[in-house]
Amino acid sequence: MSGILFVIGTGPGNPEQMTPEAHSAISASTDFFGYGPYLDRLHLGAHQLRHASDNREELERAGAALTMAAGGRKVCVVSGGDPGVFAMAAAVCEAIDTGPAEWRSVELVVVPGITAMLAVAARVGAPLGHDFCAISLSDNLKPWDIIEKRLALAAKAGFVIALYNPISKARPWQLGKALELLRTQLPLQTPVIFGRAVGRPDEQIAVKPLGDARADLADMATCIIVGSPETRIISGGGKPAIVYTPRSIAGGKR
Amino acid sequence: MSGILFVIGTGPGNPEQMTPEAHSAISASTDFFGYGPYLDRLHLGAHQLRHASDNREELERAGAALTMAAGGRKVCVVSGGDPGVFAMAAAVCEAIDTGPAEWRSVELVVVPGITAMLAVAARVGAPLGHDFCAISLSDNLKPWDIIEKRLALAAKAGFVIALYNPISKARPWQLGKALELLRTQLPLQTPVIFGRAVGRPDEQIAVKPLGDARADLADMATCIIVGSPETRIISGGGKPAIVYTPRSIAGGKR
Repeated sequence: MSGILFVIGTGPGNPEQMTPEAHSAISASTDFFGYGPYLDRLHLGAHQLRHASDNREELERAGAALTMAAGGRKVCVVSGGDPGVFAMAAAVCEAIDTGPAEWRSVELVVVPGITAMLAVAARVGAPLGHDFCAISLSDNLKPWDIIEKRLALAAKAGFVIALYNPISKARPWQLGKALELLRTQLPLQTPVIFGRAVGRPDEQIAVKPLGDARADLADMATCIIVGSPETRIISGGGKPAIVYTPRSIAGGKR
Repeated sequence: MSGILFVIGTGPGNPEQMTPEAHSAISASTDFFGYGPYLDRLHLGAHQLRHASDNREELERAGAALTMAAGGRKVCVVSGGDPGVFAMAAAVCEAIDTGPAEWRSVELVVVPGITAMLAVAARVGAPLGHDFCAISLSDNLKPWDIIEKRLALAAKAGFVIALYNPISKARPWQLGKALELLRTQLPLQTPVIFGRAVGRPDEQIAVKPLGDARADLADMATCIIVGSPETRIISGGGKPAIVYTPRSIAGGKR
């Protein structure tokens, strides 16, 4: 009697960046759970039911989807980007881990997607060209001091740093504080990329040196990439600047 | 007279994980550069020319592609996974940065793809569920002591760690050494995922505790995800184990 639960990523919002695998999961599903604007990206048939919810409440949403799948429905939980990167897949796993036994019998299929940092990076060149990390700036689910510690260690490691969930109405000061901290750890000319709604009609890209990077360049739809000390900008040729991080650091074998 | 240079990612190898955007770039191109096995994934027409090369020689390949694009051709440089993650996009940018001025007039279009760690993560659940990093274990382009330093700082930061380029004939000992180092920094029961050729017919997935993780579980086609101390395994229900990293750490606001 147990159904199936797909957890899919739509990519950053450009329909051309959603995979055929995600489309197949949508076609195979009867019920859709997710944040309203993500569900709005899908073209659903008359027999396909929307269960839209707030952007928060991930665990309740995961539980509702699992209950329906355990009852035999074909259910699709929809995230933007990749479902495994600061999105619904971990919430669904957490619900299975802590929920009723019948949820474990649901067939779980996670379908990867293009996560925001990859789309932002592609748009400007190759800033993730060497080792990098991804940090959520939301202190809803972890204490702020852990975020500060991770930012400092990431800078010390020489990682390029992608910042997810940089700012929201309920979290207005965290990005400013993070940039302030990074200015004490990295050269002030380090390139910082603000990629907003990449691939969508309202896309905005800004590249600023860390010394001039301000929190008001970001909103909820922005993914930020802070370069490493090796990250470079190529200007000229009458084209937008290219930002990239070389693959090599002096001392490798070639 | 200047042409266009697409730098695309095919995803990890499952055709269902290649985006429509990548397909469009392929259709629009006349000349294809890349490692032979990646070019083999494409279905090219009779007018489309293959320029296959060795897996190394990235900078020469980028230069050859740029020269052809500067001459007016529509050129496509093909990477597996995402072109911006340990792949060709950074090599192309580096070639533009250091090469002849006419290369700067080429229109550069980087098309993102599903990178290996996202596909491996999806296959087992949601191990990248919180902050994470990606480190290449190749010491061809950076000195080994930087890799060791980054591994230690990443473990100290509590990042989930994705390891790319873990092992090859020319680099046989690096993965063993990296696992040895991580065993001194992380609990021995930390889950380690070996994801080989994910989404392809010869896919192999293994999940081992860090204490039992051995280098011979990996080959060139493997992406490894080393959990954080929070990463958990859900067993039972007669299904493959689910591996996930909870979104939360005690001390967040909710």
